Amino acid sequence: MNAESILYQHLEMIDNEIKSIFEKRMFPKPLYDMMKYHLGWLDENLRPIEQYRGKRFRPTLCLLTYNALSGVYDKALPAAAALELIHNFSLIHDDIEDMDEERRHKPTVWKLWGVPHAINVGDGMHVMANLAALNLRDRNVTESKIVDVLAILNNTVIELCEGQYLDMDFEGRTDVTPEMYIDMISRKTAALIEASTHIGAILATNDESTIKHFRAFGRKIGIAFQIVDDILGIWQDAKKTGKPHASDIKNKKKTLPVLYAFEKASKEDRETLIEIYEKESSSEEDIKKVLHILEKVNAQTYSRRIADKYEKEAISHLEKTGINNEAMEKLKILADFLIYRTY
Amino acid sequence: MNAESILYQHLEMIDNEIKSIFEKRMFPKPLYDMMKYHLGWLDENLRPIEQYRGKRFRPTLCLLTYNALSGVYDKALPAAAALELIHNFSLIHDDIEDMDEERRHKPTVWKLWGVPHAINVGDGMHVMANLAALNLRDRNVTESKIVDVLAILNNTVIELCEGQYLDMDFEGRTDVTPEMYIDMISRKTAALIEASTHIGAILATNDESTIKHFRAFGRKIGIAFQIVDDILGIWQDAKKTGKPHASDIKNKKKTLPVLYAFEKASKEDRETLIEIYEKESSSEEDIKKVLHILEKVNAQTYSRRIADKYEKEAISHLEKTGINNEAMEKLKILADFLIYRTY
Repeated sequence: MNAESILYQHLEMIDNEIKSIFEKRMFPKPLYDMMKYHLGWLDENLRPIEQYRGKRFRPTLCLLTYNALSGVYDKALPAAAALELIHNFSLIHDDIEDMDEERRHKPTVWKLWGVPHAINVGDGMHVMANLAALNLRDRNVTESKIVDVLAILNNTVIELCEGQYLDMDFEGRTDVTPEMYIDMISRKTAALIEASTHIGAILATNDESTIKHFRAFGRKIGIAFQIVDDILGIWQDAKKTGKPHASDIKNKKKTLPVLYAFEKASKEDRETLIEIYEKESSSEEDIKKVLHILEKVNAQTYSRRIADKYEKEAISHLEKTGINNEAMEKLKILADFLIYRTY
Repeated sequence: MNAESILYQHLEMIDNEIKSIFEKRMFPKPLYDMMKYHLGWLDENLRPIEQYRGKRFRPTLCLLTYNALSGVYDKALPAAAALELIHNFSLIHDDIEDMDEERRHKPTVWKLWGVPHAINVGDGMHVMANLAALNLRDRNVTESKIVDVLAILNNTVIELCEGQYLDMDFEGRTDVTPEMYIDMISRKTAALIEASTHIGAILATNDESTIKHFRAFGRKIGIAFQIVDDILGIWQDAKKTGKPHASDIKNKKKTLPVLYAFEKASKEDRETLIEIYEKESSSEEDIKKVLHILEKVNAQTYSRRIADKYEKEAISHLEKTGINNEAMEKLKILADFLIYRTY
């Protein structure tokens, strides 16, 4: 049992739930087809295709949390679908905001159909998430819990917007500290992962302590997840991923290793960093210089240590629930995968 | 008692409710300040200002419907705030999609802070609408009704996205019929006005027939509202509005008067229309030609007649509720204002 097989086990269940929402909305077809393209169900010509569709990582966390507490999946499915749709709505809009032309080796929605349609497609996906959650009504979930789920989801989306604002704001600044960065990714990435385990838990139990531990587990693996993403964005094996070497350095993203270097580098190196990060675009020579400074301050080791710390805390929250079963084992395997993945 | 004074009576109540949601979210301040700018509370330098903020037409309809059935306002306020926030989120994104640089005589959000921030600000406003509706929890509204309100709101927003898709799609087509156009504005404009009266009614009563009539009232004044907008977009007094003469003709919008002319014009005139509407931009001469063809087929009279028909049907739904009180009188005055307004 490895992480890939666990994610694969839940993929069809999640996609079938998402499809059930799309079955209720048919017109205008191209609007929904663009959403389906982004979800990986259709190709660029809007014909059905079998291909890699993404990990469906957030809904799987929600389902496993619910399963760990209840032994079944059914009542968590509408919420799981909602979480995946929120994630995808934010990707569609992020791709426009960052001008990213490719995602999962395919052209982004705005690249294919233009910015105006892509904004509208993202807005549509955003609503579909709330409509998905409202399908909890068909699963014999109390209205009180449905309102709780909708409150968690919407409080999470506003955190995503806050994180996205900060991320864009940081681009033009050289005074960002690692603490400010952790706060930013906590909103932009960890909030939705926390919502996944939080919602899985509240649908299964009213026990405050259990809910609290699952929530903390989600928030902490969310932060670790993003830090590992940042490490991979600089040092991952370019051959394995198809992404250019040191792409986050090239794009001058202010991720944790870089911010740490800004703090820890010698006065001279710090000036070099500021100079490079204030330029319009960086040369190969600049990238080499940055990588060398990161190495001097051990930025990778530092970042890895922070990610490990968050992951250990996350696992200890899982253990504090006192629950032991197959779903709990799977959650631990997923948490480990997040930290030790190489792509 | 005229429409302006009725709208003005409800303005502070609505804005105070919206402000109460913003008080719960403070950081990052510039994100929320951009939303407040769009809502008319701050100027371009993000300083507080007293100015015209928009009609707050949709929330006023919601409040008056609720008041007509209950005699009070309180429980409808969170929903009224949500309706206004949905309207404003859609304006922020529409302004980007249409590249409109001004709204209410002020620069649009994207014009001031760029497209990436404007997309994110719109997304934030979209979530704030759901958070506003969730404040119904503080007003002693049953969870069952809260779920109903959220379902109506979200089913309305997906209709907005469908209407927006169709509107953009129609721009490049010359085969759009008046029927297709009514379907489009029914989603893009009327759905949210229907939601306003629908939600006002369901919060106050469980009587199916009453709810049905208020809903139909909303949908029909919504359609009439948009058709009048289209008439004003071609024939309104340029001096009064500050907008250029025949601006919708200049921008080649496929509104009802134009679509009617496409259908009713002589073969020769129809070819002239197609030729002009397929060109990249229209000259003063082109605009004159289009206006002349519209006049020949009586497109303004036709459009006015359709708007009147919808408004009469709307009023008859109000009358069928059998309710007579001050709030009902105000709803009628607002419906009349929509039809006979000159700006």
